[in-house]
Amino acid sequence: MERTESTQDTTAFNMPDWMIQFADQKREFNKRPTKIGRRSLSRSISQSSTDSYSSDSSDDETSPRDKQQKNSKGSSDFCVKNIKQAEFGRREIEIAEQEMPALMALRKRAQGEKPLAGAKIVGCTHITAQTAVLIETLGALGAQCRWAACNIYSTLNEVAAALAESGVPVFSWKGESEDDFWWCIDRCVNVEGWQPNMILDDGGDLTHWIYKKYPNMFKKIKGIVEESVTGVHRLYQLSKAGKLCVPAMNVNDSVTKQKFDNLYCCRESILDGLKRTTDMMFGGKQVVVCGYGEVGKGCCAALKAMGSIVYVTEIDPICALQACMDGFRLVKLNEVIRQVDIVITCTGNKNVVTREHLDRMKNGCIVCNMGHSNTEIDVASLRTPELTWERVRSQVDHVIWPDGKRIVLLAEGRLLNLSCSTVPTFVLSITATTQALALIELYNAPEGRYKQDVYLLPKKMDEYVASLHLPTFDAHLTELSDEQAKYLGLNKNGPFKPNYYRY
Amino acid sequence: MERTESTQDTTAFNMPDWMIQFADQKREFNKRPTKIGRRSLSRSISQSSTDSYSSDSSDDETSPRDKQQKNSKGSSDFCVKNIKQAEFGRREIEIAEQEMPALMALRKRAQGEKPLAGAKIVGCTHITAQTAVLIETLGALGAQCRWAACNIYSTLNEVAAALAESGVPVFSWKGESEDDFWWCIDRCVNVEGWQPNMILDDGGDLTHWIYKKYPNMFKKIKGIVEESVTGVHRLYQLSKAGKLCVPAMNVNDSVTKQKFDNLYCCRESILDGLKRTTDMMFGGKQVVVCGYGEVGKGCCAALKAMGSIVYVTEIDPICALQACMDGFRLVKLNEVIRQVDIVITCTGNKNVVTREHLDRMKNGCIVCNMGHSNTEIDVASLRTPELTWERVRSQVDHVIWPDGKRIVLLAEGRLLNLSCSTVPTFVLSITATTQALALIELYNAPEGRYKQDVYLLPKKMDEYVASLHLPTFDAHLTELSDEQAKYLGLNKNGPFKPNYYRY
Amino acid sequence: MERTESTQDTTAFNMPDWMIQFADQKREFNKRPTKIGRRSLSRSISQSSTDSYSSDSSDDETSPRDKQQKNSKGSSDFCVKNIKQAEFGRREIEIAEQEMPALMALRKRAQGEKPLAGAKIVGCTHITAQTAVLIETLGALGAQCRWAACNIYSTLNEVAAALAESGVPVFSWKGESEDDFWWCIDRCVNVEGWQPNMILDDGGDLTHWIYKKYPNMFKKIKGIVEESVTGVHRLYQLSKAGKLCVPAMNVNDSVTKQKFDNLYCCRESILDGLKRTTDMMFGGKQVVVCGYGEVGKGCCAALKAMGSIVYVTEIDPICALQACMDGFRLVKLNEVIRQVDIVITCTGNKNVVTREHLDRMKNGCIVCNMGHSNTEIDVASLRTPELTWERVRSQVDHVIWPDGKRIVLLAEGRLLNLSCSTVPTFVLSITATTQALALIELYNAPEGRYKQDVYLLPKKMDEYVASLHLPTFDAHLTELSDEQAKYLGLNKNGPFKPNYYRY
Amino acid sequence: MERTESTQDTTAFNMPDWMIQFADQKREFNKRPTKIGRRSLSRSISQSSTDSYSSDSSDDETSPRDKQQKNSKGSSDFCVKNIKQAEFGRREIEIAEQEMPALMALRKRAQGEKPLAGAKIVGCTHITAQTAVLIETLGALGAQCRWAACNIYSTLNEVAAALAESGVPVFSWKGESEDDFWWCIDRCVNVEGWQPNMILDDGGDLTHWIYKKYPNMFKKIKGIVEESVTGVHRLYQLSKAGKLCVPAMNVNDSVTKQKFDNLYCCRESILDGLKRTTDMMFGGKQVVVCGYGEVGKGCCAALKAMGSIVYVTEIDPICALQACMDGFRLVKLNEVIRQVDIVITCTGNKNVVTREHLDRMKNGCIVCNMGHSNTEIDVASLRTPELTWERVRSQVDHVIWPDGKRIVLLAEGRLLNLSCSTVPTFVLSITATTQALALIELYNAPEGRYKQDVYLLPKKMDEYVASLHLPTFDAHLTELSDEQAKYLGLNKNGPFKPNYYRY
Repeated sequence: MERTESTQDTTAFNMPDWMIQFADQKREFNKRPTKIGRRSLSRSISQSSTDSYSSDSSDDETSPRDKQQKNSKGSSDFCVKNIKQAEFGRREIEIAEQEMPALMALRKRAQGEKPLAGAKIVGCTHITAQTAVLIETLGALGAQCRWAACNIYSTLNEVAAALAESGVPVFSWKGESEDDFWWCIDRCVNVEGWQPNMILDDGGDLTHWIYKKYPNMFKKIKGIVEESVTGVHRLYQLSKAGKLCVPAMNVNDSVTKQKFDNLYCCRESILDGLKRTTDMMFGGKQVVVCGYGEVGKGCCAALKAMGSIVYVTEIDPICALQACMDGFRLVKLNEVIRQVDIVITCTGNKNVVTREHLDRMKNGCIVCNMGHSNTEIDVASLRTPELTWERVRSQVDHVIWPDGKRIVLLAEGRLLNLSCSTVPTFVLSITATTQALALIELYNAPEGRYKQDVYLLPKKMDEYVASLHLPTFDAHLTELSDEQAKYLGLNKNGPFKPNYYRY
Repeated sequence: MERTESTQDTTAFNMPDWMIQFADQKREFNKRPTKIGRRSLSRSISQSSTDSYSSDSSDDETSPRDKQQKNSKGSSDFCVKNIKQAEFGRREIEIAEQEMPALMALRKRAQGEKPLAGAKIVGCTHITAQTAVLIETLGALGAQCRWAACNIYSTLNEVAAALAESGVPVFSWKGESEDDFWWCIDRCVNVEGWQPNMILDDGGDLTHWIYKKYPNMFKKIKGIVEESVTGVHRLYQLSKAGKLCVPAMNVNDSVTKQKFDNLYCCRESILDGLKRTTDMMFGGKQVVVCGYGEVGKGCCAALKAMGSIVYVTEIDPICALQACMDGFRLVKLNEVIRQVDIVITCTGNKNVVTREHLDRMKNGCIVCNMGHSNTEIDVASLRTPELTWERVRSQVDHVIWPDGKRIVLLAEGRLLNLSCSTVPTFVLSITATTQALALIELYNAPEGRYKQDVYLLPKKMDEYVASLHLPTFDAHLTELSDEQAKYLGLNKNGPFKPNYYRY
Repeated sequence: MERTESTQDTTAFNMPDWMIQFADQKREFNKRPTKIGRRSLSRSISQSSTDSYSSDSSDDETSPRDKQQKNSKGSSDFCVKNIKQAEFGRREIEIAEQEMPALMALRKRAQGEKPLAGAKIVGCTHITAQTAVLIETLGALGAQCRWAACNIYSTLNEVAAALAESGVPVFSWKGESEDDFWWCIDRCVNVEGWQPNMILDDGGDLTHWIYKKYPNMFKKIKGIVEESVTGVHRLYQLSKAGKLCVPAMNVNDSVTKQKFDNLYCCRESILDGLKRTTDMMFGGKQVVVCGYGEVGKGCCAALKAMGSIVYVTEIDPICALQACMDGFRLVKLNEVIRQVDIVITCTGNKNVVTREHLDRMKNGCIVCNMGHSNTEIDVASLRTPELTWERVRSQVDHVIWPDGKRIVLLAEGRLLNLSCSTVPTFVLSITATTQALALIELYNAPEGRYKQDVYLLPKKMDEYVASLHLPTFDAHLTELSDEQAKYLGLNKNGPFKPNYYRY
Repeated sequence: MERTESTQDTTAFNMPDWMIQFADQKREFNKRPTKIGRRSLSRSISQSSTDSYSSDSSDDETSPRDKQQKNSKGSSDFCVKNIKQAEFGRREIEIAEQEMPALMALRKRAQGEKPLAGAKIVGCTHITAQTAVLIETLGALGAQCRWAACNIYSTLNEVAAALAESGVPVFSWKGESEDDFWWCIDRCVNVEGWQPNMILDDGGDLTHWIYKKYPNMFKKIKGIVEESVTGVHRLYQLSKAGKLCVPAMNVNDSVTKQKFDNLYCCRESILDGLKRTTDMMFGGKQVVVCGYGEVGKGCCAALKAMGSIVYVTEIDPICALQACMDGFRLVKLNEVIRQVDIVITCTGNKNVVTREHLDRMKNGCIVCNMGHSNTEIDVASLRTPELTWERVRSQVDHVIWPDGKRIVLLAEGRLLNLSCSTVPTFVLSITATTQALALIELYNAPEGRYKQDVYLLPKKMDEYVASLHLPTFDAHLTELSDEQAKYLGLNKNGPFKPNYYRY
């Protein structure tokens, strides 16, 4: 296992260790607290216009599984909350299309060729307007898709309805039970006369289900594209154990996705998350950031720019030296814990902030987590009788010591930016484009290019994702002349860097 | 009087021109749209715990003016929504005290001497927990106070109740009518056996009322302390017209207040306001900022730090040269209007963004105002039949052109940061401390130091306000030695700079 | 005396206190160490082509006062090193003209009107190519000029020769004795049939000489334009003492000049000065900057941007609060003196760094001064027997303690950026343009506008200087519409700000 | 072929393409212009005290090869300019030791064990005080060394003398002929009774010589450590051709070295190089930086911080997207070439700036190269009759067009920072420590760990180099607890990251 630095996993829930040994275990669903309290999904301007639908849960208590619904073409191969919401969902999808120019560009290029002709893709992701744009792009590229949700709370019902109306067999609604969750997945794969040959997964649950229930299905499957840190982890475990039976592509670690999910996104969301929860002023504040990976680098740069005085802790001497050269005092947490106004964890580690640290913080100190999971702050240690918890605002608790000292704990130690901020559509666009290209690559790769192993997205594809997003910034790329390409020993169309290049 | 650059007036509403000629005019209240749609006041962590009281308007439809209420000491010299909320309000005040160390330090120093002994202060400001800390500090310094609200919407009822319970005659509730508004002010000044000798005003309404109704009262009044851009403007008009009959202190233009209300506050609130309304990503975005005063400087610095590409427009060649040296392209708005993703006004001027500009913006362009008033963007020009307005979120409108182009207009062109963000308690603490010191100065000034004119806060007081806020940052000031003070020709305790010093 | 903060005086030498009481004192020239060790003047690219002339001192030992020289028109009303160098000097001037577009623009506008027609200007400044462009511009505007050097070392002989050749009576050479210095000044003012009516001074020596020797001359003099901190100080002393008998204009404190001489120039020259002397790396270094005025702000911003960790000391609480909000820890020098790698003074004060501090610094600590004078570091305290001085490079001394500890002292505590860096032509252009406009204003002002006092440059002129420099940056200023100007109560051509505006 | 991005090769000269095919070619030495005009080596404070030796070339015209010299122990197994300079060289070495704490720490740890006991190292690098510290550290670790210079101009004679005096067989002097160059190398390897078992090379010349003359020697050689881009390139060519017969370690691409040689070093040296050559002001200047690799990122960050307006060109869409997110307009060179004040190349490519671009630049535009080689600007195209070259300062040429337009060309298009700036000792310390650890690793690696291939420095060693440099910044690393290490699946002592981690 090699995921040691902190990275923001914007797509998958935080999975406990035991889940990675899932292949031959019975899962106990009622023990999965991680399905609860997920991030608030991206709320773009456009989506907010559907806030009126938040009341849709109240309209009808019947389970979608018990309803008889048909779309306007007469199909009932789907299961959503209410097919009648399709029109509203369609509008959401159309607006999202405007903000996802890369996928729209892919559709345009697909008018001639259909790189996914013949592909039968089963997908399991969050179901949002952005995902719908992805699914319909895959369709435009020639694929047939069936889809379930990777999370029981995150489905936008009207978007699911719009997909169903347009003919995509989608099985998903907001507020599924655990049983519903697996039932939906099963409905995607267990179909008469249709067998998937590609998997697009986010978290590994779909993959797990097929492994467990329909292992023979892998004979026809050309590959798995996996999005999340957790799902990737599971795949590497399978691979190590020699149990991976098709090629898998880890799109989580592509350069473009990593930089946007971590450095660029967190540079903004640390400020946003802190402001929305505490309305604090950053200028002059003393902050300690634990961990100087991409997430930590983003947090530090933003807070320094806003006039905070930032200290950094690190375990890795190379990252530590980077922190020094970037102008941050490298300290042990104990050295500054009494004086800081804010403590931010982004290590991917556990118990980085302990009860002992919390005891020594000054009154009013804000504690939050930007890292991979909710283990970084030892929140459990604060659940003791002598401490009083006071919920002062959504996602904000005051933990009060007997002497009156208050610690301001954000999101109960879960990811601040996912709990208290939103993910910009631009970031989701990069993710979706990466997924689409990975599917195309695996589906079209000549025999033998990929074996039963986990692969990173080919650099050329990574570059292509980036190039599709440059027009957003009216950015003009320079092209190599033949002479220059020869001098550099490069193909004019890339890839432009060796694999070990660090960007 | 020349206040021409943009400054953030965080305390007063945006007053139309005609209001400054108020001295001998009948006011037409139903024409005062400015009382409506005021900023959401500072919402500190602590205050948010009272969100539960937002329902208190529903409990009782009786006008406070028709109620009989007494506090626990039997006094009924007040008029608030519900005296029973006093306990909750007290808790809010206590929490605010923790965040306003400068006023608490003043109280401590007042244990020996009472610099406001004998002062009878009538005040008219927003009534919030922070104001309560100010009022009770003035009491601790020896003053008697009577208080009304300067805004019909901004009163926190429970805080008013707590003040009333503790014996402050306060006349204010949330949701006053215009008639209520002036009735409350009148109850503050028109008292048997009590006549004010100091005025603390925010917007000039209280001053206006006394001028109009009780001009003789000015014989005993030692001075006016005025907080807002608008109120200061009115005082300068009075002074020019030879009608100002007592000294007045313009605390709006003190160095410390200006820097915090404008540069430091806006550096943070531009990001906050944009994020909360649009969830946009700043990196790579092209932004034009109109005006490079303190507000513009703050906006530009913040957006540049977040990776935006920032253009600046200016009319003043000195500010323009500063923009150049700070690394911003100085352009005319027309040159970049087609390409930018965001337009931000902070000029204090009118019609900076015209319909013609709006017509030329690209699809999705965000338009907002950080300047002094809501005149900067010609919003009225967008109210034409061919354009469709769509409210997509609170404070966010899409204005849609016939060809489908959408402009994202924030807060209908009113101040973004007051409409869509909050003012940190720290900034309010600086304002309140400045007000307290100005009152002390005017009240204690020897005969003749101040004439019937408008004065800036003495530099030494300005420095004192700053020094009271340094402990927040654990900042350690260096003291001059006798030898050094002599060398510099300075008093060791300041003032340290000539009046024309620019900071 | 009120100039208390540190400012970079790029034009005048550091004058001891006693000099300001010069009006009725005999001066002891052999006590003027300040004439020695002056800054290396601006060395623009163009000037460097004359490096070959550095050997010109060797060619001829005869004093210019003993030489008979004539220019090509037969005039001998000048005294320079060697009139034959005129051609080379002319080339220097021509190149400087290219970099001083503002003065060239003034010349162009003067083709119609001659605002200085009839002006007889006596000047005493550094004599460089940039000054020559100024002098010839004054001529083009209609003035007659006579000129001497304000410094015995700074004259560029070939430039003086070029001026003499073109008909300007200039009296100046590199390496004057003190006696030569005053003789040259006297030759400028003590002329048959010519009496100056304007003075342009840099340091106050010329003004002093006229006061002392030819007080009657002031009857015809319309005004003094003074450039330097020291000269301005002297004028304020005269004014206070009631001895100033003509209007004087303090051009040192104009906004544009101040910002460029201090903030913008030092932001770059602190890095340049440190690099050229020590080749050190800035990243990760701990630095303490004493003083957070404009110079300190520039130094701090630059070093922070290069990855240094910067601490600030201050005596003024307002500047201290600014340092906090800009993200610097405010400390007393003692708190960090043991740990820092660099100590930089910019206070304008004396003995800011004492022997005690120096004793406690760590091995290799670099100490330098960016402030107003050489008093900030107590260099004298290092001249004790137990310490060894080792000159390791030009302007760099190692001071070695008995235990082997070395302190790296730069420029012996004199101004680092003037000793070890250069002043960009752009900054000199702003200064020269400001001087020219001040002369025009004083010369053309209607009777009574200026009294026998010291004035700041009118804001409108300050703005004009700025506007003349905007084309350098291809910067496009916005003009007010009539309607906007009326709304703001401004003249469309400025001034745009009240006098107390802080920029 | 893998070197596509620009990196600063601070240690090797710029090698023409043909050199990489050296293995079986006769070399024509008189065609090697690259030996000429090399960078000025690091000039630390301490070294500058030896400026007096710059005259040593004049003292003695005899070739060192013709001299009979012995050190104080009677050995004559060396060839240096003048053994009598040993004392001065020793002082230089001692001062360098103070600035290279990492190597000194290695010596201390070697007091118990001698990881290089039995190692016979032949080295070919620049011979400077810093190299001497490396060589003597290798000796302290147990190795026997013989050394030659990798460059005919860069040897510090007094340092070579000090090494010879202390018993190191060193063959090197400043101003060698090409024949001398190879003679010296041969004297290192062609020794009776001594055969090297390790090679430390910088540029590949030593390796080349052994390949050509003594191929049998490789039987005993355990490995090659190569420092330079060029040498590494040659090794990869050998490896591809199947001719590499021992393991080789590419220390050029270690994380720590790369970041310091490129990002951190160039962030400072771009400013330094421009200032020292042109004295220009950065504020407000328009700059285009070609290439956004590590070097470009450093240049852009520095200039942006100084107030320049920076445009970027790129061929790689990923780097292009990074430039966008970091706030730079991505353009094609043609789009901005008419308006920019400075053009900086850092691509590693050729003809990035063509004559056509140069023709279109505006008057006064500065052109320089920070990239890998001198091919980026097509300087040859400027050698045409209609253009006049004027050398205005060392390393600064004005190229003058017929219409008078001047382009300011720095260092004739060679690397600006190596030609016009210096390399800080701290950077050299990182390089030397990396070399030492690579030698230890290769020498002690168990049979089979390394094959006949080119390897990157093991991550753990890379981390170790970083950790040895943390004390310089008083930086305190955090250690993992056992529990945390287990949670992360890491060894407590590292390595802490997977190989593909990008930092």
